[in-house]
Amino acid sequence: MRSTMMDLPLQVARILEHGSTVHGTAEVVTWTGAEPRRMSYAEVGRAAARLAHALRDECGVTGDERVATFMWNNNEHLVAYFAVPSMGAVLHTLNIRLFPEQVTYIANHAEDRVVLVDGTLIPLLARVIGEMTTVRHVVVVGEGDPAALLAAAGDRIAVHHWDALLADRPDTFDWPELDERDAAALCYTSGTTGHPKGVAYSHRSIYLHSLQICLPEGFGLGPHDRELAIVPMFHAMSWGLPYAAFLSGASLVMPDRFLQAAPIAEMIAAERPTLAGAVPTIWLDLLAYLDTHQVDVSSLREVIVGGSACPPVLMHEFERYGIDVIHAWGMTEMSPLGSVARPPAGATGAEAWRYRYTQGRVPAGVAARIVGPAGEPLPADGVSVGELEVRGPWVTARYVGETTPTDEKFRDGWLRTGDVGTLSADGFITLTDRAKDVIKSGGEWISSVELENALMAHPAVTEACVVGVPDDRWGERPLATVVLSPGASVTPEELREFLAGTVARWQLPERWAFVDAVPKTSVGKLDKKVVRSRYAEGGLRVHEVAV
Amino acid sequence: MRSTMMDLPLQVARILEHGSTVHGTAEVVTWTGAEPRRMSYAEVGRAAARLAHALRDECGVTGDERVATFMWNNNEHLVAYFAVPSMGAVLHTLNIRLFPEQVTYIANHAEDRVVLVDGTLIPLLARVIGEMTTVRHVVVVGEGDPAALLAAAGDRIAVHHWDALLADRPDTFDWPELDERDAAALCYTSGTTGHPKGVAYSHRSIYLHSLQICLPEGFGLGPHDRELAIVPMFHAMSWGLPYAAFLSGASLVMPDRFLQAAPIAEMIAAERPTLAGAVPTIWLDLLAYLDTHQVDVSSLREVIVGGSACPPVLMHEFERYGIDVIHAWGMTEMSPLGSVARPPAGATGAEAWRYRYTQGRVPAGVAARIVGPAGEPLPADGVSVGELEVRGPWVTARYVGETTPTDEKFRDGWLRTGDVGTLSADGFITLTDRAKDVIKSGGEWISSVELENALMAHPAVTEACVVGVPDDRWGERPLATVVLSPGASVTPEELREFLAGTVARWQLPERWAFVDAVPKTSVGKLDKKVVRSRYAEGGLRVHEVAV
Repeated sequence: MRSTMMDLPLQVARILEHGSTVHGTAEVVTWTGAEPRRMSYAEVGRAAARLAHALRDECGVTGDERVATFMWNNNEHLVAYFAVPSMGAVLHTLNIRLFPEQVTYIANHAEDRVVLVDGTLIPLLARVIGEMTTVRHVVVVGEGDPAALLAAAGDRIAVHHWDALLADRPDTFDWPELDERDAAALCYTSGTTGHPKGVAYSHRSIYLHSLQICLPEGFGLGPHDRELAIVPMFHAMSWGLPYAAFLSGASLVMPDRFLQAAPIAEMIAAERPTLAGAVPTIWLDLLAYLDTHQVDVSSLREVIVGGSACPPVLMHEFERYGIDVIHAWGMTEMSPLGSVARPPAGATGAEAWRYRYTQGRVPAGVAARIVGPAGEPLPADGVSVGELEVRGPWVTARYVGETTPTDEKFRDGWLRTGDVGTLSADGFITLTDRAKDVIKSGGEWISSVELENALMAHPAVTEACVVGVPDDRWGERPLATVVLSPGASVTPEELREFLAGTVARWQLPERWAFVDAVPKTSVGKLDKKVVRSRYAEGGLRVHEVAV
Repeated sequence: MRSTMMDLPLQVARILEHGSTVHGTAEVVTWTGAEPRRMSYAEVGRAAARLAHALRDECGVTGDERVATFMWNNNEHLVAYFAVPSMGAVLHTLNIRLFPEQVTYIANHAEDRVVLVDGTLIPLLARVIGEMTTVRHVVVVGEGDPAALLAAAGDRIAVHHWDALLADRPDTFDWPELDERDAAALCYTSGTTGHPKGVAYSHRSIYLHSLQICLPEGFGLGPHDRELAIVPMFHAMSWGLPYAAFLSGASLVMPDRFLQAAPIAEMIAAERPTLAGAVPTIWLDLLAYLDTHQVDVSSLREVIVGGSACPPVLMHEFERYGIDVIHAWGMTEMSPLGSVARPPAGATGAEAWRYRYTQGRVPAGVAARIVGPAGEPLPADGVSVGELEVRGPWVTARYVGETTPTDEKFRDGWLRTGDVGTLSADGFITLTDRAKDVIKSGGEWISSVELENALMAHPAVTEACVVGVPDDRWGERPLATVVLSPGASVTPEELREFLAGTVARWQLPERWAFVDAVPKTSVGKLDKKVVRSRYAEGGLRVHEVAV
């Protein structure tokens, strides 16, 4: 039996129309270091129409061509977020922090036709525009000399200025009705190996994800909120905040390039956001700043922390300022929201904190499961450890350009997150390891992170890095590399006994190496790939404990 | 460009799975007058699986066959809400309050195969089951003698008992993947003229509507909430609360047949709901009860009032109990949520109250417009008066059995609500008249309700009823019928002068009739149809004022 309901596609244009009319007096504010630049959502709606006309008439954008942004979080980036998908084209947010060869690979892979760039970012774009072979138009937002762009790309590109390009164009646009499953926006993830991979969000996935963001169990956005969106718009769609803001009527405060603690504190005091979202380092910096300066942060009721695991101390320390730090988890492949760590009904005190330390609870749109080493689903009991897999209408099924999903990243219609941890019966995810760092020993998994944390609790140990190494009998076994405290002395046998107090005996490493330092990646993480290859090449002096 | 996102249908089964696992410890509580009956959402999930098995294996329900309910709000009705759509069949909620001939018309039109009935409602069902020609199975919930049903329907029907039918069946069911545009549930509206008309909600519309209900701008439901769902599950899907509860993790408190003020007050004190939803009369009764009894209603933060216009006095009086009465508006044809009257950001004091008196603000999923007498769209300026039209993914496009939408109810893809009022620039709807009661005079509309309210402000007038009557020059003109206070005396000319203080001169009635009483409908509303026909038949002594 067919339903009698209207068959209307879920489209970004509908979010734009709603936000720019019903919430037309809400505003987006961009920090400038001097007087902030303000636009009402009604003005954003008119500017989006003008940008769409300009892209169509001056840049020749038709159909589903890609329009890239190389921009900070600001008013014009917000206009592009709405104009490009609403006209049927595809918004491609280029990550300004990637290596040049990654940026050019991504732009060429996506076949970007137009790049919108902040004037302040022209020097960075000039380093790569010469290699972006499909780009024909660059639109400069704000002040900035385009000479370097023309020098690099020659007459392959035409350079426009945003203000001149949008001037005198109609401030309405007849947004086309689209297939809600068509791509609206593109984001590339840069894994540690291989080329970056593209995720193409649909109008449908963006619409559904935006609703989820606004739910009380998500970020709880409403028209009384002002959201400080620090998480970059070039990173996982700024967690969906721009679209969620227009859907809910929440105003937006944008930091542009002012991401240090001092201007962030100023923004909070001046623009009085109620909510904010950013990665942990931003909040750690802000915390240090607040502890040494007088800043009025009383408007903030909650900050969402994601992007990497939130240190519990950060949550506790912000309590002093009356701010709830809420841990959230997601992936570019998940639009990105996967879970938000709000304690369930009835949990108080220490129990509530235990829930808040987790990665959070999955919403109705995200199904999660834990699978074991052979791909077998494990119980959602909060104890069984395995790789986390997810599915849902805003989760990617494959990468751009792939005709069939790869086994490495997808399994039977589920996305393999590459994260290892547990799932509780009430839907809370706790992640402990990256799957590639877990030690697969005799069909069971051993957490390298758990062993490292347990080792570092020993007074003689300064640092520890545990990796899986090949073992004839068990497939893999843990190798512990340990940096001792100056003057300290301890034997592998003693460390094993120490560990036996906290981890199961069968997980205890047999192979030990005392080293002067543990190799690190450029961002300061343990470089386990290097440790494994040193071991393979015989570059470590390994002590084997007889068991 | 196709998106890379998973193409997963929005289905009621996904809401069931989420609620019965992630929120498995949330509960539904049914009032009994004695010890309440409780089920966890995990138990609801298992019962839904058992019911689906029973319907398939014992009642032969296949494909999209209709399974009707003739029930109060209770645990088993909730189980049916999930089991029937999740298995691919269509839930048909029969309104127990309709006239017998309406109920049988509806059941036959929908071709209901099974009826689930509360034992307490067997006498009511027995009056109509004989005429429900497509029904083959009746399932009795709770105590009740089915003899009257068998006497009425003979061996055309098999009668089962819920407990026996569900016993020993598997508590999981392999819910099929469905087309999200297929019908999930059926509701019939009983207009004042003609046969009742069916609306078939889709899985998609239910899913989207449930998200909307849970948003802060909707009802703001989360797992910390307990929702007292007084609005019947046989009326406009109980405003979507059952599905929204499973989506959000809010618990449900169900009144069953105990709808009087005393048991409702007891429920609130005992079960401590945080939210509640019902029509104004329920709240008026409860208010009177609270004013004369000691009841702890401190758990309630908000009650949603809809179904008919909420008297402002009700909102103000509940402030004394620390409860926000929030006005909402919708229609069966809208799933039903159309708007919720929460003041916008920045509105305080008297301004906030003015917003709260309106029918509310449309959410992102509902587009609204006001059209004039000739169907021309009017500005959303809060002043222009016209018929309200709506569209959106949870708004009906036609009625069941119609191949093309009728002009009377639909226009160019919009639903004509039959309500007349204004729409403000910021999306607030204010309704003043039913379209059929508006007086169409020379291409302009005159509000009969506005004239009545103005007239009743005159000390000599007890009651007034204004209707449109044919006029050669203007098409229609207002006729005012007036009941005077005992002993009062006033002329039509004097009343016209009085009205001229509040309404435009061209709207003043020329035709006047003083009557002893105004005819009323069975539910106490002014019966304007009778007034119009009395006038047409010359049954009124009309005084015409020379203008």
